[in-house]
Amino acid sequence: MKKVAVVLSGCGVYDGSEIQEAVITMLEIRKNGAEYQCFAPDKEHFHIINHLTGEEMPEKRNILIEAARIARGDIKPLSELRGKDYDAIVIPGGFGSAKNLTRWGIDGPKGDIDPDIKRVLIEAVEAGIPTGLLCMSPVIMAKALEGTGRSVRLTVGTTEEKSPYDIDAISNGIDSVGARSAMCPVRKFVIDEENKVITTPAYMMEANIEEVAEGISRAVSKLLSL
Amino acid sequence: MKKVAVVLSGCGVYDGSEIQEAVITMLEIRKNGAEYQCFAPDKEHFHIINHLTGEEMPEKRNILIEAARIARGDIKPLSELRGKDYDAIVIPGGFGSAKNLTRWGIDGPKGDIDPDIKRVLIEAVEAGIPTGLLCMSPVIMAKALEGTGRSVRLTVGTTEEKSPYDIDAISNGIDSVGARSAMCPVRKFVIDEENKVITTPAYMMEANIEEVAEGISRAVSKLLSL
Repeated sequence: MKKVAVVLSGCGVYDGSEIQEAVITMLEIRKNGAEYQCFAPDKEHFHIINHLTGEEMPEKRNILIEAARIARGDIKPLSELRGKDYDAIVIPGGFGSAKNLTRWGIDGPKGDIDPDIKRVLIEAVEAGIPTGLLCMSPVIMAKALEGTGRSVRLTVGTTEEKSPYDIDAISNGIDSVGARSAMCPVRKFVIDEENKVITTPAYMMEANIEEVAEGISRAVSKLLSL
Repeated sequence: MKKVAVVLSGCGVYDGSEIQEAVITMLEIRKNGAEYQCFAPDKEHFHIINHLTGEEMPEKRNILIEAARIARGDIKPLSELRGKDYDAIVIPGGFGSAKNLTRWGIDGPKGDIDPDIKRVLIEAVEAGIPTGLLCMSPVIMAKALEGTGRSVRLTVGTTEEKSPYDIDAISNGIDSVGARSAMCPVRKFVIDEENKVITTPAYMMEANIEEVAEGISRAVSKLLSL
């Protein structure tokens, strides 16, 4: 049975992992006959957002502990993830990817990247282990490979469908750190064959859960076929 | 397009809604051509559990605000839910059903039920609106109909497959408040035709996400066909 590492960044779209994308990823991994192990950084969230109002809350929460909610307690610290122990690695989306795993959402393309996820992604690409990045997470791969000489093809969505975000600006940011942005609708995915990197827009687009699930389903199936 | 109310009780299996069950429910509703609106009680959690260690945390969190994480912010207070506005009502599982919507998990079958969910479920059954209850949530229906003269047939799983819980004891508790417990494996569901109540064991059983999803998929399809 193939083993997939799923990297979470909290529990909730506005300060952590996008929950629906994370669960659909886990479900699709099992549906493809593989199993998963969740990981998350054992550090504090950048901040905590009240998901009802969108306002910041005066709280501190640990990313690993909150991500354990999605994983039903079965989760390990990201520092323990070695790519060679897994057949593939997936990072669902959510602002946690741009606030906790990188600071892209705060500081733009110059934002820092978490050293553990940078190590994991560079090791994976160099070892030929397929990676899947959903929603905003492709920016993590762009940052991980910045300055390595590898130029990876990635999507965060398309300007031809509705999005709550500025897809053009984020795509330009991806290009600015040496990766190559591509346009892609929510039900499809983009593959970089050379680096074995698959990306799908998910909730970067104005979409419903069924559309998002279709894109993730296709991306995960392809990932596990590589 | 049919409209389904999804009632959440927090965000995480040990103190709120079971996240995977909630997301799969929402996905299956859309896959069946219907849409959903999430609701949750606007009150404090019974307590907060660290999902990594299983220990209680010295924190207070609001159920509606935390449930909004699953719903991506699109959620309303349970007090605003009128069954007649919806074609069906679903309550995913998790300990929130037995700590926040009832106190069954704390005080057993004599535990209190939240007045809003009691009103919603009695109104639904009396109006012939189909309801679906997953995992531990059937005890909410048992408590809602206690003393009404209606005896509803419900399942929380089976003693013939592995479970982390005492299915026999919970089934006996269901019988003790006037409902009728039935045994059912994780991939199937139980239907009470008279009261239009559908129940499936989900994570009451020792199961993986794909098995849980199969049970929920069948239950939601049937619910929307009633």
